[in-house]
Amino acid sequence: MERILIALLPDFVGKEVIVKGWVHRIRQLGGINFVILRDRTGTVQTVFQKSEELSGIRNEMVVEVGGKVVSEPRAPGGIEIHVNSCRLLGDVYYGTSIPLEISNQRAFDRAELGPVLEHRPLSLRNSKVQAIFKIESELIWAFRQFLKQRGFTEIFTPKIVASGTEGGAELFKVEYFEKTAYLAQSPQFYKQIMVGVFERVFEVGHVYRAEKHDTSRHLNEYLSLDYEMGFIDDEQDVIAVEIELLKYMFSHTKKVCGAELELWGAEVPEFDTIPQITLKNALQLLEEKYGKRAKSKADLDPEGEMLICKYFKEETGTELVYITHYPTSKRPVYTMPDDKNPEVTRSFDLLFKGLEVTTGSQRIHDYAMLVKNMEKFGLKPEDFDFYLQVFKYGMPPHGGLAIGAERLTKQLLDLPNIRMAALFPRDIASHSLP
Amino acid sequence: MERILIALLPDFVGKEVIVKGWVHRIRQLGGINFVILRDRTGTVQTVFQKSEELSGIRNEMVVEVGGKVVSEPRAPGGIEIHVNSCRLLGDVYYGTSIPLEISNQRAFDRAELGPVLEHRPLSLRNSKVQAIFKIESELIWAFRQFLKQRGFTEIFTPKIVASGTEGGAELFKVEYFEKTAYLAQSPQFYKQIMVGVFERVFEVGHVYRAEKHDTSRHLNEYLSLDYEMGFIDDEQDVIAVEIELLKYMFSHTKKVCGAELELWGAEVPEFDTIPQITLKNALQLLEEKYGKRAKSKADLDPEGEMLICKYFKEETGTELVYITHYPTSKRPVYTMPDDKNPEVTRSFDLLFKGLEVTTGSQRIHDYAMLVKNMEKFGLKPEDFDFYLQVFKYGMPPHGGLAIGAERLTKQLLDLPNIRMAALFPRDIASHSLP
Repeated sequence: MERILIALLPDFVGKEVIVKGWVHRIRQLGGINFVILRDRTGTVQTVFQKSEELSGIRNEMVVEVGGKVVSEPRAPGGIEIHVNSCRLLGDVYYGTSIPLEISNQRAFDRAELGPVLEHRPLSLRNSKVQAIFKIESELIWAFRQFLKQRGFTEIFTPKIVASGTEGGAELFKVEYFEKTAYLAQSPQFYKQIMVGVFERVFEVGHVYRAEKHDTSRHLNEYLSLDYEMGFIDDEQDVIAVEIELLKYMFSHTKKVCGAELELWGAEVPEFDTIPQITLKNALQLLEEKYGKRAKSKADLDPEGEMLICKYFKEETGTELVYITHYPTSKRPVYTMPDDKNPEVTRSFDLLFKGLEVTTGSQRIHDYAMLVKNMEKFGLKPEDFDFYLQVFKYGMPPHGGLAIGAERLTKQLLDLPNIRMAALFPRDIASHSLP
Repeated sequence: MERILIALLPDFVGKEVIVKGWVHRIRQLGGINFVILRDRTGTVQTVFQKSEELSGIRNEMVVEVGGKVVSEPRAPGGIEIHVNSCRLLGDVYYGTSIPLEISNQRAFDRAELGPVLEHRPLSLRNSKVQAIFKIESELIWAFRQFLKQRGFTEIFTPKIVASGTEGGAELFKVEYFEKTAYLAQSPQFYKQIMVGVFERVFEVGHVYRAEKHDTSRHLNEYLSLDYEMGFIDDEQDVIAVEIELLKYMFSHTKKVCGAELELWGAEVPEFDTIPQITLKNALQLLEEKYGKRAKSKADLDPEGEMLICKYFKEETGTELVYITHYPTSKRPVYTMPDDKNPEVTRSFDLLFKGLEVTTGSQRIHDYAMLVKNMEKFGLKPEDFDFYLQVFKYGMPPHGGLAIGAERLTKQLLDLPNIRMAALFPRDIASHSLP
């Protein structure tokens, strides 16, 4: 007999079925023996005739259960299975009790992040944890879908590189045969090269930052959602694509992950457009409105990011805001200076509920200008020969951005720690490597 | 005026348009001045009134051209643009001549792979080279699409790992803060863990092999298309999914990349099913049919792979064949032994035109059996604590496989070297790092 997925059982009321899954929970109630069974589509209550049949059954065992699907208003979902047969498919080998109560949401919610990560193979089975990764995968699915529809080509660029894209700090070293190589901080150089080929490209892939931060917002290996597009007028074209892209990603996720969003009490942002403010005006606003004097004129600190989002939430109702025109000295060498004021760049960050989730800009596309800028930044153009090559052969005005997938998921679900949005997070802490 | 993509120009005959793209080729013929313009959708012939207008125009410059679309049977595609205006968007900075004639296919086809890779930002602009990556990205697109439709969830697992999945040889070392870590050889451990969560998972991501091979079939960083599925009866369930998956990938690619396949004179394989032969029988067949005595009873050598495919091509018409039941000693520790004969495993390779493109198997899902097998292999179970954890909590019978994306593309297009199927190949040779 063919296995029936739990979510499809309502179509089989009155019929004999086989279901397969994990023993989610065992309950003995008023002399009745319930086993809640879990598969990838949900849970169902099964009823065993005699308590002896339950002996030896433990949480997380994998079983095949045969029985009749019966309508039962008191059962969760209105149906249950009256069990005729139960066969063990996968045994368990833990001690007297399971280290994390994944089937008891209240208990699980009280667990500290440390044990949750330490027992990752188990904690990922909790339905709220599963929901995070279902949502993340659908956000990424929609990212690709939208860009493909807009004529972008998917690319896969190397993660072992000869040098950094942003100057060389915070790189992980790799022993590459007789050489030293690094893990890529970003697909920046490659995606620009590919603008010369396909005009519009995107990539979903890991990037690496050897930052010694141990914060709730940093990972040392994270998923970067990148796109880069040619033949733009300026950075506003890049922003315009992202606004439509985010609308698409959010509405797709709302459509297919309704139940998962509800588990987290999360609602996807809805907006027509996203407000913009220059960094200079943002700093001024912080001072005037909140009496907050910036330590640096070059960036917002975390508190500043929170307050700016709070302000725009109150003023416009949206939880997203672009900060534009970061100073030239604080942006990577390839960032296009603003033609009206070369002290600032055609760059932007996107803040979402007080956290930067995107960085982007128009890039310099003229070879001579880029070489000159490298020299101004104290970089040696000969160290970037391979990258510079593309600019010798004609590059259109272009720009792009990168979205941090785990940050976007974290903010969407209001997760307190970004590690919760990575299956097996890589951070500086010792528990992070397995 | 809005830019019109070249592929859409036939809808604009008689109208004034703006096109943007690269100067693909300049031709002066019988006093007429042609510039062939290229954008991401194709090329078009543009006609300049006076030869003076061409002065300063060089190959690969990026220009915006305004003019009238005119029907012209002698022009390639039957239309041309009579140019009114031409504006430079991106200048070129190479010497007197361009290092690779990307617009002259015959000349380009004669170029050696060395210079082609050295000038990668330029060579990728050649239309036959572009076609490779269009096809590869569509194969991968279809891989995801098919599996998602079958209830698989996409996952993203770390590439920085604490140990190897296959015993520890051929790993790239990474300096991970105060520790030594490695680049993942495969997502094997993680995708198995995720079977415990989503039952069916897939991943598209880079994997790393520090093999010192410098062959036409090895890359040190390659794209692995992985899936893993729970609740199988045996490895034949994994194979059955792959057969349908490959049909889908090939037919999708045929549908959307007809022109690109034609550039390479390639046809996608069509088949109802894929023949299978055990390794033992394959070795016997090689000896009986071709007088080829195997040096090793544990694997096929490259010549053996070629001959087996030749045999099945002649016998059954298909260019794909599964080799099954590899010896237990030659397969990774997690491979399920065959219950009828524990000397061999429930494993398989898929050969395509004489090259292995897939490796897969049923895996051991019982904790006690896996620990015992590790000890038999001389491995210390305590080195695999994190991985072994999942088997303590109930795992269903499961299996999976990995397809090498670049190998699949190489074989489909009959490329002589796998480096041609990687945008920026990573190999042991010195030119490979930038």
